[in-house]
Amino acid sequence: MIEADYVTTDPDLLEAYRHDRASFVTAGRPVALARPKETAEVVRILRYAHERRIPVVPQGARSGMSGGATAVEGAILLSLERMDRILAVDEVNHTATAQPGVINSVLSAAAAEKGLYYPPDPGSWEISTIGGNVATNAGGLCCVKYGVTSDFVRELEVVLADGRILRTGRRTAKGVAGYDLVHLFTGSEGTLGVVTEVTVALRPAAEKPLTAVAFFAAPAVACEVVSEYLSSGWRPSVLELMDKACVDAVSAYRDLGFPEDVGAVLIAQSDRGPAAADDLDAFAKIARDHGAMDVFVATDHAEAELLIEARRLVGIALEKLGDRLTDDVCVPRSRLAELVEGVAAIGREHGVQVPCCGHAGDGNMHPVVIFDAADPDSVRRGQAAFDAIMALGLRLGGTITGEHGVGTLKQPWLETELGEVGLSVHQAVKQAFDPRGILNPGKVIRRTPS
Amino acid sequence: MIEADYVTTDPDLLEAYRHDRASFVTAGRPVALARPKETAEVVRILRYAHERRIPVVPQGARSGMSGGATAVEGAILLSLERMDRILAVDEVNHTATAQPGVINSVLSAAAAEKGLYYPPDPGSWEISTIGGNVATNAGGLCCVKYGVTSDFVRELEVVLADGRILRTGRRTAKGVAGYDLVHLFTGSEGTLGVVTEVTVALRPAAEKPLTAVAFFAAPAVACEVVSEYLSSGWRPSVLELMDKACVDAVSAYRDLGFPEDVGAVLIAQSDRGPAAADDLDAFAKIARDHGAMDVFVATDHAEAELLIEARRLVGIALEKLGDRLTDDVCVPRSRLAELVEGVAAIGREHGVQVPCCGHAGDGNMHPVVIFDAADPDSVRRGQAAFDAIMALGLRLGGTITGEHGVGTLKQPWLETELGEVGLSVHQAVKQAFDPRGILNPGKVIRRTPS
Repeated sequence: MIEADYVTTDPDLLEAYRHDRASFVTAGRPVALARPKETAEVVRILRYAHERRIPVVPQGARSGMSGGATAVEGAILLSLERMDRILAVDEVNHTATAQPGVINSVLSAAAAEKGLYYPPDPGSWEISTIGGNVATNAGGLCCVKYGVTSDFVRELEVVLADGRILRTGRRTAKGVAGYDLVHLFTGSEGTLGVVTEVTVALRPAAEKPLTAVAFFAAPAVACEVVSEYLSSGWRPSVLELMDKACVDAVSAYRDLGFPEDVGAVLIAQSDRGPAAADDLDAFAKIARDHGAMDVFVATDHAEAELLIEARRLVGIALEKLGDRLTDDVCVPRSRLAELVEGVAAIGREHGVQVPCCGHAGDGNMHPVVIFDAADPDSVRRGQAAFDAIMALGLRLGGTITGEHGVGTLKQPWLETELGEVGLSVHQAVKQAFDPRGILNPGKVIRRTPS
Repeated sequence: MIEADYVTTDPDLLEAYRHDRASFVTAGRPVALARPKETAEVVRILRYAHERRIPVVPQGARSGMSGGATAVEGAILLSLERMDRILAVDEVNHTATAQPGVINSVLSAAAAEKGLYYPPDPGSWEISTIGGNVATNAGGLCCVKYGVTSDFVRELEVVLADGRILRTGRRTAKGVAGYDLVHLFTGSEGTLGVVTEVTVALRPAAEKPLTAVAFFAAPAVACEVVSEYLSSGWRPSVLELMDKACVDAVSAYRDLGFPEDVGAVLIAQSDRGPAAADDLDAFAKIARDHGAMDVFVATDHAEAELLIEARRLVGIALEKLGDRLTDDVCVPRSRLAELVEGVAAIGREHGVQVPCCGHAGDGNMHPVVIFDAADPDSVRRGQAAFDAIMALGLRLGGTITGEHGVGTLKQPWLETELGEVGLSVHQAVKQAFDPRGILNPGKVIRRTPS
């Protein structure tokens, strides 16, 4: 193995870095763990691996949900967590430049200190890295208004499979010189290159949001409110849905003072300053017109934070229910009610609980399949429910992943979504960037048989 | 040649379709012109060309400025202008689906009829096609707030070099299933595939904008105002600069009532409804603090239209000055003043007029080199000035093209911008999509010698 102080073969460390947070995914046994601090060290690792055809699995915080960072048999795990320096926050041009291991919330705080705002806020934002966010094209609560990670990435430094350094994109607001490789690398889950530096666009700080919550008897009605509210032209900065199972789980974890017989909750925010009240009045009116049980507008920032916290607690609250497979389906928002009702029906059919919450404004829901990993029948039913949810998402004109990525978990389903021509083009792109197939092999797509 | 009613070899027609609007670009002699109406016809043309290794040059309205649609020797010209149907405007999910030959302004009007808004508005929007806009990733006046074409493209149908049909992207608001091929095709100038259907995102209709104009003694001061205004967090929907030569040319064409000794003009718009007045007050204050000669806020929509019309008339007004090479450089907005002053110095050094206007808010300027095509010395000086402007843009941390594309005009300069590794990756991508090199050969990049 390559000899350097940033490379280890310690079995305990290798074990500790084998997995990300995906369920239903098998991890291989790595041969080494590299934790470089500089691009030059990444270059050295990739040159070594390329020459010897050793697989390389890039890793951020290993907080991904699809197995993108899970070890591959015989691989060098390439953790970027120690490349954690913010290199610049440019107050005039509104950009930030960082190494990939910087935590999202740390970058956001550095921007905020200068009166600027980095919107993409995945649920993992307090632990996940900007490099991992780029690798998966992470979303979050604010996407409904501000867009996802790729809408903010301007320039990347990437170490290619053979160790060459590519700088691509630009720092200007616009530019069409050559192919858009920045968007190609973003969301490619480490299969086309290893990102070693990221420049993102920032926005002026947003105004403190106003927050409203609406309670419904059933989630399908809440979905109709989402569709009508957005198609009427309103632009909330957050629009989140929690179904009854999520509300119950969070309420058991922390008393929110929500009504007891709630079937679904919508949480809306607007950050349009004085105009935010108009946005939430319109939300309240549409909710009431659809028979909302109650609508409540937070009167201060603390109340508002409590509501958003309720949404952010869903993940941890569901841990009490059993083992979990967090899914991630996105459909056109006109089909949202069909998705949510369909997920409930799938849960009944397969005899598994599937609490459902998510970024309703984007049509991006996270059904969470609850199962018991110790019970093979429960695992089988959980997997069947997961597959049925993927199929439902595609049938509704949607995609198998809105923001969590493909990894290994959804690799077979990706082929269904892409179709034969799409898969073949993906394989040609992979071949162009990684002819020896060493970069995160088996993730996203199968290689062309060579 | 392929026998079909949509293919002609009529010499007059071939001649009529040989050129786009680029100067300093040599057109080859085409062997046929195809004007298909359906995707199946495009498939037939590409299969035919692929089998026989005949170059194919896709064309929209041929309004491009960089030679992307200019004929290549021995090529089939593939005009998409007859594929001009709007297939759907989805009022709930806020998308529009169109064939590539639909004119931008026609698509915009169809969206507006349903209370929706398609922001990208290149100067050519009344003649250019949505397919051409996708091919060049076109920008426009509204980009400073709303972004460029690629920020709106959701799904594409593309006929690949060998005639296979690829559908890529999705209709949902978000999605990370597989590589982002939509952004890869957008801006690739027909070198990776032929776009035969486009689905774009729409926004709710914007409010009617409020418009202000500020007059300055010199353009560098106007640039400082731009930089300070935007870095202070204001979000105008338009922020355009015209230098003295542009103002004089437009005034000669149509009396605008502008002061006579103006050195530069900034035109700002805000479409934030009631808050627009705040935006323009801040603009006026910053302009006056920098010594603006005068600031004037339009009191009604007609006055506002007149100001924007003044900016849109620059192109036609400059036609009186001679032959023109419209350039397109984008720099970080903190470097805008250096760009504008540098362009003026280049004009003096090479003894050519270079009026300069553009999308100042994006740092994207269009210096227009005036020359006399009948005078070899004037042509030589014009070309030298053009090259000096490219070099200046790169030296300021910018790009050789903000929105017009590379075509053949800037192909050598693209190699300088990309560098050795970047060029090699571009060539690998081109090879993956078009192994026989039949798609718009010689445009954007040179092929790898094979």
